Amino acid sequence: MSAAATWSESGPRTVDEHRAAVAALLASSGVETVPLAAAAGRVLAADLTAAIALPPFDNSAMDGYAVRAVELTGASEGSPVELAVSADIPAGRTDVGPLEPGTVARIMTGAPVPDGADAIVPVERTESSDGGAGFGAGGGTGRVRITVAPEKGAFVRRAGEDAAGGAVLLEAGTVLGASQIGLAAAVGRPDLVVRRRPHVLVLSTGSELVAPGEPLAPGQIYESNGTMLAVAVREAGATAEQLSFVPDDVEMFRAALAVRVRDGVDLVLTSGGVSAGAYEVVKDAMTGHGVEFGKVAMQPGGPQGCGRLELGGTTVATVTLPGNPVSSLVSFEVFVRPALRAAAGYPDPDRPVVTARLAGDLSSPAGKRQFRRGVLDATNGTVAEVGSAGSHLIAALARADCLVDLPAETVSAAAGEPVAVWLLGT
Amino acid sequence: MSAAATWSESGPRTVDEHRAAVAALLASSGVETVPLAAAAGRVLAADLTAAIALPPFDNSAMDGYAVRAVELTGASEGSPVELAVSADIPAGRTDVGPLEPGTVARIMTGAPVPDGADAIVPVERTESSDGGAGFGAGGGTGRVRITVAPEKGAFVRRAGEDAAGGAVLLEAGTVLGASQIGLAAAVGRPDLVVRRRPHVLVLSTGSELVAPGEPLAPGQIYESNGTMLAVAVREAGATAEQLSFVPDDVEMFRAALAVRVRDGVDLVLTSGGVSAGAYEVVKDAMTGHGVEFGKVAMQPGGPQGCGRLELGGTTVATVTLPGNPVSSLVSFEVFVRPALRAAAGYPDPDRPVVTARLAGDLSSPAGKRQFRRGVLDATNGTVAEVGSAGSHLIAALARADCLVDLPAETVSAAAGEPVAVWLLGT
Repeated sequence: MSAAATWSESGPRTVDEHRAAVAALLASSGVETVPLAAAAGRVLAADLTAAIALPPFDNSAMDGYAVRAVELTGASEGSPVELAVSADIPAGRTDVGPLEPGTVARIMTGAPVPDGADAIVPVERTESSDGGAGFGAGGGTGRVRITVAPEKGAFVRRAGEDAAGGAVLLEAGTVLGASQIGLAAAVGRPDLVVRRRPHVLVLSTGSELVAPGEPLAPGQIYESNGTMLAVAVREAGATAEQLSFVPDDVEMFRAALAVRVRDGVDLVLTSGGVSAGAYEVVKDAMTGHGVEFGKVAMQPGGPQGCGRLELGGTTVATVTLPGNPVSSLVSFEVFVRPALRAAAGYPDPDRPVVTARLAGDLSSPAGKRQFRRGVLDATNGTVAEVGSAGSHLIAALARADCLVDLPAETVSAAAGEPVAVWLLGT
Repeated sequence: MSAAATWSESGPRTVDEHRAAVAALLASSGVETVPLAAAAGRVLAADLTAAIALPPFDNSAMDGYAVRAVELTGASEGSPVELAVSADIPAGRTDVGPLEPGTVARIMTGAPVPDGADAIVPVERTESSDGGAGFGAGGGTGRVRITVAPEKGAFVRRAGEDAAGGAVLLEAGTVLGASQIGLAAAVGRPDLVVRRRPHVLVLSTGSELVAPGEPLAPGQIYESNGTMLAVAVREAGATAEQLSFVPDDVEMFRAALAVRVRDGVDLVLTSGGVSAGAYEVVKDAMTGHGVEFGKVAMQPGGPQGCGRLELGGTTVATVTLPGNPVSSLVSFEVFVRPALRAAAGYPDPDRPVVTARLAGDLSSPAGKRQFRRGVLDATNGTVAEVGSAGSHLIAALARADCLVDLPAETVSAAAGEPVAVWLLGT
């Protein structure tokens, strides 16, 4: 029925092999149209072209007067030229006629330059006809003394000088922030076509789990993986829905899952129930139904699984993470986050990687790629381990800002040695 | 009634003076309690202490058998020791009694170690009594052959080894991501006390503005500042509400504002209507009512204003940005974003600043601090200008990933010279 069992029989996968297997499960997430305000942080799905030129028309860069430069060649502070103000052009005026020869038009920043005018004189270089500085009270009816000879084109913003009509403003794949969304608005777009966010159903299993806020009996622990992974999924640019406290009974587990897996779920992400124990509900419910389980040569996070889960006549991409919280989040970082971001079209699916020198000695098991939790000192270029290798040390994990990536062949690394460091951000 | 008019009479402020004036307007944003899933990206407002130890009890790091190490001192592959399995301890079992002497207990990863047991033997180092590897079918009723002599403490995770009960796990001021929220869940917290996000009312004014998607008459432009600034406010960690197309009439403007300014608004942020023009609704509506207007010695973004606007018997912090889109967003970056983030408690209110070498020559007006738009080449450590100094070049702004910060005294900077670069991120 499925290819199950081949992985575990063929020995552990490398990290890169399992990364590729997980990435192959997730197709491109498709596209959707969203209003501008909802496009922040999303990935543009199609080139944004300029439906109009920017600016759309010649306009004034200053508050002042639109003039014919040739009529002011002799003007200076000592010898101002006085002209009649034949028009008043506020920003937004839509019925501006040509500038009458021998006159000027009062004009505000952003207002359309009238035909015939070829320069703007800022108000600071004028005197109103009553001798004062600034705009006179007369609006378009008085006279003005101009104390400068402007160059042709002075303070005129030409139509299309920022972008020609039809130009590609933003390429598909651009991550949209404030300035990109502002630009889309400036060319009249009320919405944008963006990549859809993959939707992830996050499950955590384990009969030892209790909801935070409830009393804890001896032997029980608080459920933390589901909430943690849902946050990590959203930080990765996907959406998350959480399904906690699913039954440990295999048939009930499959039934609960079938109810929730509908067309909108792009990935089922589980934690726990995949190792060598006698009670492994995830493994038991999915083995033989399209999901393969086996070992990855890494630490933490050795026991892994992935595949297309067959469920109620359909299939859904599924990744099963181990249940220890550190194993769970590190596996998410290594396998799931890059796959989700690639599916959502982000140009940077992987975390930034830098090189730093170890602050202390580390040992690492032979044949396993190890990801230790670290704190980077960017100023000195060093990285110090927080906690130790234990996959249950969630308090230490929460103080880490990076992962130290030790290759499989490394068995020891001394203080001062350069190592690759994945920057986790917050 | 207010201190208005002193600023404009005393000459331009420096960038740092206006930054301080804006920052002084915004008090600390206060605190609120939110469910864990809503705490992502927020700032922790009080130290998170461990209500329980982590782990809460001694538990097994492996699937295997809980043993007394002293009873297995002679065990090896060639000479296994066979013992009775007196108990079966799955994860989550809450009624575990002491381990009977001369027996072992089958135990799963994460399950409580029984009193009397002092080591775990992984299942891989055992044979079931029928001679096979892995767990026998008998559960707690059979016998098991153990092929290794464990050290005391082997594969036992001690209660409190990650964090002692009462320990400070996360300090106030920590920005909360997946691992921090996972940790809070692990110690039983269903919610967290975080800093409240400041709420910003974003206004854009101008009778030339048309909503994106509507037809554009000659002389009109699409409204883009409001949407752009609302996105920028949200990216800064605050919340935004947009009020566009407010009337240009002063009394109507004040009335529209009074309706919307309620207790929940921490900042009124306007763009446009503040320069030297004859129609400056923001300036006209706020002058003499607690908001001061004047020049800042910077480019773009010279005309600025801020203060506590008196409105209908109350006051509200107000910052008025210039209306050109580049001036507007650059002013937001320089003055408003750091003030909002500081008010919200973020440990990093400012953008990261790096030094890079100019890819080309730049000139800059004497006496004005200039922020040019750039694209950083981090590999080569160089920064190239996009567009030019024009404050209307929004298409160029949308391609920039940084601001080049040229000091007020700089009038020219040659290719190859080091300059300060603000990284904008996306």
